[in-house]
Amino acid sequence: MKAELVSVGTELLLGEITDTNAVYMSQRLAEIGVDVHFRHTVGDNLGRITSVLELALSRCDVVIICGGLGPTQDDLTREAISEVTGRPLRPDPVAEEHLREFFRRRGYTPTSNNLKQATCPEGGMLLENTCGTAPGVLVEHEGKAIIAVPGPPPEMREMLQREVLPYLLRRQGDAATILRSRVLRLCDVGESTLVAEIDDIIRGQTDPTVAPYASPGEVRLRLATKAASEEDAVRKLDEMEARLRERVPQNIYGVDEETMEVAVGNALVEREATLAVAESCTGGLVASRVTDVPGSSRYFLGGVVAYSNEMKRDVLGVSAELLKEFGAVSEQCAGAMAEGVRELHGADFALATTGIAGPGGGTPQKPVGLVYIAVADSDGTVCAQHNWPGTRDQFKQRVSQMALNMLRKRILGIPLEAG
Amino acid sequence: MKAELVSVGTELLLGEITDTNAVYMSQRLAEIGVDVHFRHTVGDNLGRITSVLELALSRCDVVIICGGLGPTQDDLTREAISEVTGRPLRPDPVAEEHLREFFRRRGYTPTSNNLKQATCPEGGMLLENTCGTAPGVLVEHEGKAIIAVPGPPPEMREMLQREVLPYLLRRQGDAATILRSRVLRLCDVGESTLVAEIDDIIRGQTDPTVAPYASPGEVRLRLATKAASEEDAVRKLDEMEARLRERVPQNIYGVDEETMEVAVGNALVEREATLAVAESCTGGLVASRVTDVPGSSRYFLGGVVAYSNEMKRDVLGVSAELLKEFGAVSEQCAGAMAEGVRELHGADFALATTGIAGPGGGTPQKPVGLVYIAVADSDGTVCAQHNWPGTRDQFKQRVSQMALNMLRKRILGIPLEAG
Repeated sequence: MKAELVSVGTELLLGEITDTNAVYMSQRLAEIGVDVHFRHTVGDNLGRITSVLELALSRCDVVIICGGLGPTQDDLTREAISEVTGRPLRPDPVAEEHLREFFRRRGYTPTSNNLKQATCPEGGMLLENTCGTAPGVLVEHEGKAIIAVPGPPPEMREMLQREVLPYLLRRQGDAATILRSRVLRLCDVGESTLVAEIDDIIRGQTDPTVAPYASPGEVRLRLATKAASEEDAVRKLDEMEARLRERVPQNIYGVDEETMEVAVGNALVEREATLAVAESCTGGLVASRVTDVPGSSRYFLGGVVAYSNEMKRDVLGVSAELLKEFGAVSEQCAGAMAEGVRELHGADFALATTGIAGPGGGTPQKPVGLVYIAVADSDGTVCAQHNWPGTRDQFKQRVSQMALNMLRKRILGIPLEAG
Repeated sequence: MKAELVSVGTELLLGEITDTNAVYMSQRLAEIGVDVHFRHTVGDNLGRITSVLELALSRCDVVIICGGLGPTQDDLTREAISEVTGRPLRPDPVAEEHLREFFRRRGYTPTSNNLKQATCPEGGMLLENTCGTAPGVLVEHEGKAIIAVPGPPPEMREMLQREVLPYLLRRQGDAATILRSRVLRLCDVGESTLVAEIDDIIRGQTDPTVAPYASPGEVRLRLATKAASEEDAVRKLDEMEARLRERVPQNIYGVDEETMEVAVGNALVEREATLAVAESCTGGLVASRVTDVPGSSRYFLGGVVAYSNEMKRDVLGVSAELLKEFGAVSEQCAGAMAEGVRELHGADFALATTGIAGPGGGTPQKPVGLVYIAVADSDGTVCAQHNWPGTRDQFKQRVSQMALNMLRKRILGIPLEAG
C-alpha cells in the first residue's frame, strides 16, 4: 500500500512550528508496512490544498491529511476533500449533536463556524475525536482512501491509533487490527554493537518489528506488533522482549517511559534504601534528574554541589592532604566525596562525580572530558574513570547518565564490568 | 518571489529524523520576503525526486533542494537536477581540487564516488561548502533557479546564509545583500502583554522585522534585517533594539544565546561577586543551570540540595523551631535556607527555593505549585511567593527560571517588583 501525507498550515510554511506530526505518522505507517512515497506541506489555501490532493490521489492508494479541520475560515481541509471528490459537504446529525453537547457542558452555544466541523463529504464518514472538537474525515473515492485527522498532536495521535491504523490494516486485508508497541531502553552499549548482536532478530522479524534508535546516552529498541486482540499483542511483545533480554541480559535498564532516574528510583524503593549525591562536574544535574521523579523524596535525602575545593573539604570532609596529593579530579577524591556525602546524610547509597567539563581547565595529564564516578555503600566504595570529550552539555548529560547507571547496577548487584 | 522547498531522504519518510532544516529554511526565506508555497519530502529515488522538481519548476520561481548531495549511490540530487534540466553533469576542476585537498590533509585518497560530489550540471555553478565535502549546486534554467544545499544542518545553515540568501536578494532586485538577525530574550512578561505593548512596532516595521516567539519561561523577539553592509545591518538592529528597550526597559534580560544563567553569570562577573544556592523543590536544577555556563567556577562556589528537613537543619542551619512553626515550604524557611547556604560558603549572593513540585504532597493550605524563592546578600534577604501548578517538570523549569531572574535583578539593583 502506497501512501502520501499532507500537512496543512501556513504556520508550517513560515517555519513557526516544526512538523512533528509528520514524523509520528511516518513512523506508525512504516510499522504497519505502509510505504510513504511523498510528504507535502501546504498553506491554508483552498486551491493549493486541492492541487496537492489531486496529485497525491493520482499516484497512491491512501492520502492522509493532517490539519485544517478547525472552525475558522482558514480551515479548508474539509472543503478541499469535497472539491477534489465532487462530494458536497452535508451536516452529520450524530457529530453535530456531539459538538452541541461538548459546548453545552462548557456553557457555550456553538456558532455556525463550529457546526462546520460536523459536516462530511457525501458518502464519507466522520471519525470521532475523543480529545477535541474536530472530527476526522474518511472518504473512499474511486478505489482510493482520503483520511483527514486534526492538527493538534494529542488529537492526531489518538485518532491515528484508534481509527486510522486499524482501518489501514483492514484495507490491507490484515486480520490483525490491534497495534501495540513497546520501547526497550538500553545503556552501556553502542547502536552498532547492539545491532551486530541482534542482527538476526532485526532482519528476521516482521511481527513484532524491532527497530533500533540511538539517542544521547542510550539506545532504544522499538518493538511494534499487529495483533487480533490486546492479549495477543501483549503476548507477542512479551515473547520478543524475552528473546532480546536473553541476548543482552544486562543492558536493558527500562521499558517505555522508564528513564534511568526512574529505574534508579525503582531499585531504591525495592531495596528500601536511601540515596545522597555529591557532584562536582555535573553541577547538580544528577540531583535534578533524581528529583525529576515524582515521589523521589521517599529515597532521596539530598545532595551537595561541591564546585570549590573548600566545599569538598568543609562540607564533604575530603582531606586537604588528599586534594593536595591527587587533586580534585581523581579517583581518590571521587571516592572520598561519595563517602563524605553518605556519612553526612546517613544514606545507604551515595554517588559522586568529579571531572573536567571544559571547555577550559584541561591539562595534558587531566584533559577536558576526564571524569571519575564513585559509588559508596555499606560494602565499600567503587570508582570508574572515563574520558568523554564533547561539549559541556554533552559531557554533563553523559556523565549523569553513566553515573546513574553505575548506581543502578550497584543497587541491583549487577557486576559493574558487565553489560 | 515564489519558492518551493524539497527535502530529500528516505530516513525522513520513515520518521527516523525530524526535518528541522525545512523549518530553518522556511524562517529565513520568510524574513527576506520569499513566499514558500509548498514543501515536499521525497525519498532517495531518482524518478520521484525528478517528478517533484518538474512539478515545482512548473509553478514557482525558485526551488531549493536540501540533501542527497553526499558521495553514496543513494545521493541523487545532482542527477535529478541534471535530468530535469537536460544538462549533463561535468567535473568542476576547482571543486575537484578542493575535494582532493580536503582528503589529502586527512591522509585519504578520494574515490570516484567522492569525486562525484565535484560534478556540476552544465552551465550551473557549485557553491563552496566551508564545513563539509558536499558543494551546493546553483542552476539557472529557463528563467527559474534551482538551488541544492547539503543535508547536514550546520553545512546547510552556513551555505544558506553565505550564498543562497544573498543570491535570492540579488535576484529579487534588492540592493541589500546582507542579512542579519538578533534575538532579544524577555522574562516577567507574557507574549500577549508584550505584543499589546509593542503592537505598533510589530505592525509598522518591515525592516527590521520584529516577530515574537513564546518559549517556556520567556518570550523572544526576533529582529531580522536586510542591509547593504555589515555596519548598516548592525546599525539598524541597534536602533530597533534601543526602541524596544525603551518600551520594555526591565524585561530584556539577554540577547541571542545569552540564557538566563549566562545573564546571571555576567552580572556576577561584573560585580566580582560569588554565588551559592540551596534548593529543595528544584532539586539541583538551579545549580545545574548555573554550572552549564563555561567558566562558572569563577563565581559559583557550590550548592546544597536539601530535600529532607534534616539536611535543611544540619547542613543549612535552618532551626528546628522554624521548621516546626512554619514548615519547610514557607517564606521563613526559604529565607533561612538562603542565609544558611550563604554563610556556609561565605558567598556574596545566595539563592534558595522551597515548594511543592507535585504531583503528590499538596494540601489545601499548601497546594501543589506553591513555591517560595529567597535571595540573600549583604543587604539582607528578600523572598517571593508564587503559585505555578503544572507538571513536575514545568514547575522545576519555571521556578529555576524565575529564581535566576530574581537573583539577576538583585545583583543588578533592579527593583524586584519592576518589569
